[in-house]
Amino acid sequence: MTNRHIVLAERPSGLVNATTTRLESGDRPTCGENEALIKVGMLSIDPTIRTWMNDAPGYLPPIQIGEVIRGSGAGVVVESRSPRYSVGDIVYGMTGWQEWVLATEENKFSVVPSGMGLDLATVMNVLGVTGLTAFFGLLDVGGLKEGDVVVVSGAAGATGSVVGQIAKARGAKKVVGIAGGPEKCAEVVEKYGFDECLDYREPHLGRRLRAACPNGVDLYFDNVGGEILDDVLLNLAMRGRVVLCGAISQYNESDDRSGIKGHAMLIMRRGRMEGFIILDYAHRFAEAQMELAGMVLSGALQHQEHLVPGLENAPDALNLLFSGGNHGKTLVVVDDTVTLS
Amino acid sequence: MTNRHIVLAERPSGLVNATTTRLESGDRPTCGENEALIKVGMLSIDPTIRTWMNDAPGYLPPIQIGEVIRGSGAGVVVESRSPRYSVGDIVYGMTGWQEWVLATEENKFSVVPSGMGLDLATVMNVLGVTGLTAFFGLLDVGGLKEGDVVVVSGAAGATGSVVGQIAKARGAKKVVGIAGGPEKCAEVVEKYGFDECLDYREPHLGRRLRAACPNGVDLYFDNVGGEILDDVLLNLAMRGRVVLCGAISQYNESDDRSGIKGHAMLIMRRGRMEGFIILDYAHRFAEAQMELAGMVLSGALQHQEHLVPGLENAPDALNLLFSGGNHGKTLVVVDDTVTLS
Repeated sequence: MTNRHIVLAERPSGLVNATTTRLESGDRPTCGENEALIKVGMLSIDPTIRTWMNDAPGYLPPIQIGEVIRGSGAGVVVESRSPRYSVGDIVYGMTGWQEWVLATEENKFSVVPSGMGLDLATVMNVLGVTGLTAFFGLLDVGGLKEGDVVVVSGAAGATGSVVGQIAKARGAKKVVGIAGGPEKCAEVVEKYGFDECLDYREPHLGRRLRAACPNGVDLYFDNVGGEILDDVLLNLAMRGRVVLCGAISQYNESDDRSGIKGHAMLIMRRGRMEGFIILDYAHRFAEAQMELAGMVLSGALQHQEHLVPGLENAPDALNLLFSGGNHGKTLVVVDDTVTLS
Repeated sequence: MTNRHIVLAERPSGLVNATTTRLESGDRPTCGENEALIKVGMLSIDPTIRTWMNDAPGYLPPIQIGEVIRGSGAGVVVESRSPRYSVGDIVYGMTGWQEWVLATEENKFSVVPSGMGLDLATVMNVLGVTGLTAFFGLLDVGGLKEGDVVVVSGAAGATGSVVGQIAKARGAKKVVGIAGGPEKCAEVVEKYGFDECLDYREPHLGRRLRAACPNGVDLYFDNVGGEILDDVLLNLAMRGRVVLCGAISQYNESDDRSGIKGHAMLIMRRGRMEGFIILDYAHRFAEAQMELAGMVLSGALQHQEHLVPGLENAPDALNLLFSGGNHGKTLVVVDDTVTLS
């Protein structure tokens, strides 16, 4: 009747290391009135988790020292005293990095529909925050228009790969990815169907961007921030739009990071740069999930999941996002018996 | 029958100096079919002129070496072979830094209405690009809403002072200026009616901004760029908007400028940063000029012009914008007999 969980032991500077988190064992929570007990099956490993470890203002409060690491995940309902959940339901929500969690009035879960013909990892990737971020960021914040030249950084990543595929499906004239290393670049073109992919580890990214987009970039979906953002800003088309999804290159940096210099191009090119947080779109998740599920089932949306077995490996899985060692959406398998029929 | 004019002699790095420009004397142009000869009375000195001196891509091509310095101004029509202009008309357009200019099919001027009860300097300030930039930047790009907390940098300047006054008139909850030195800060509050003004030369601007805007900044009208922009980004309210009007602090800098670091706050706060160029609003100038003229005549809009006599002093007048030595809209008087009745 234990509940293994991972807490924040100290605030990291840079990557998470052996002393950042601590694996502990506590009591399994008990189910009160209007609550349900969930056995966690899978954790979604997202870059934003790293930002919550800092003692800095953000869109959610920092994780406190000694608190279970915050994060989304999926599990199965094993006991329910709530009309919202039935035993056996597969549910998705803020599980945190632990084996057991309660669904409460304050921490609600959504029931994942079964019978879609999609497995749980696919649902957590494409229909979870990753795919939803791609969908709303590209279409709603970026206002994708037919004929746009679209550039996506982190193009081999879970969000970036979906962005490019939706852009193609919705009539972008050209979709150019940016990724790290020849293997990922090849995958972006061959598997995800981008028109081109530029390796940011090679020199002169700005010059290669200009060659790939001679009339400029109409829409840039930025997953990384930093110097790459600068290179794209300098190649912005008139009325170009920059969607700030994440600044993953900056999350582990201290204050001496260099900053972007190209923002004056927003004046020259009448450009717009806008940030968003996917949680703001919660009321519209269902519409996007329908379309994304349809694209997966019809084969129009390629996706890939990188499964890391074992709750205890969640901190290493988080670091994979920053080292680029992951391949597709990173998920930690806490209990492989939790599946979607 | 001469035409004194100032040409670009070499590209400046940093401020314009004695070898950047050259005063030359040439022939007065002669008026062809469908053209009009204009005697220049006054030049508008704008920070953007400095950007045109760089050999860098911009919203207009760089001024070529040996070419007359580009800039707007006003003059009087002394000869006309065009139905658009009558002798005696006061006209406004791209005069360049010279005593005489032709209105042509390619270089059209607009006729300034007389009988408004406004003098030429006021018209060139409030109804010229300066006031128009304030108007469209605040209302159209920034989307000012009633109850907004508005921050304006360069608040004692020609554009900034107008921005703050329009914001107050249109229902902003609080308008906070940022300016350099106690004298300018006092003027921003006492003359232009801002609620508060922060001196960026004093330390801890970010902290003082937080004190002045405890619930964050809803709309920031940025006239300066650089570190001040960063300080405001870190104090952005949820769904805050940043209007990039100019990056005057950056125009004289070389590539080692530090860049902004706070753009990730656009993600946290779902913010938007957008640039614009006033020329894009040319088709809507008239509506804004009506409203601005009305505000001046009713006493709702305070303004100030800084007159520099003599064409030969135009380069020094341009430097005043960057040293902060000007006081209100900087205008060079080329010929003080050109006036508006």
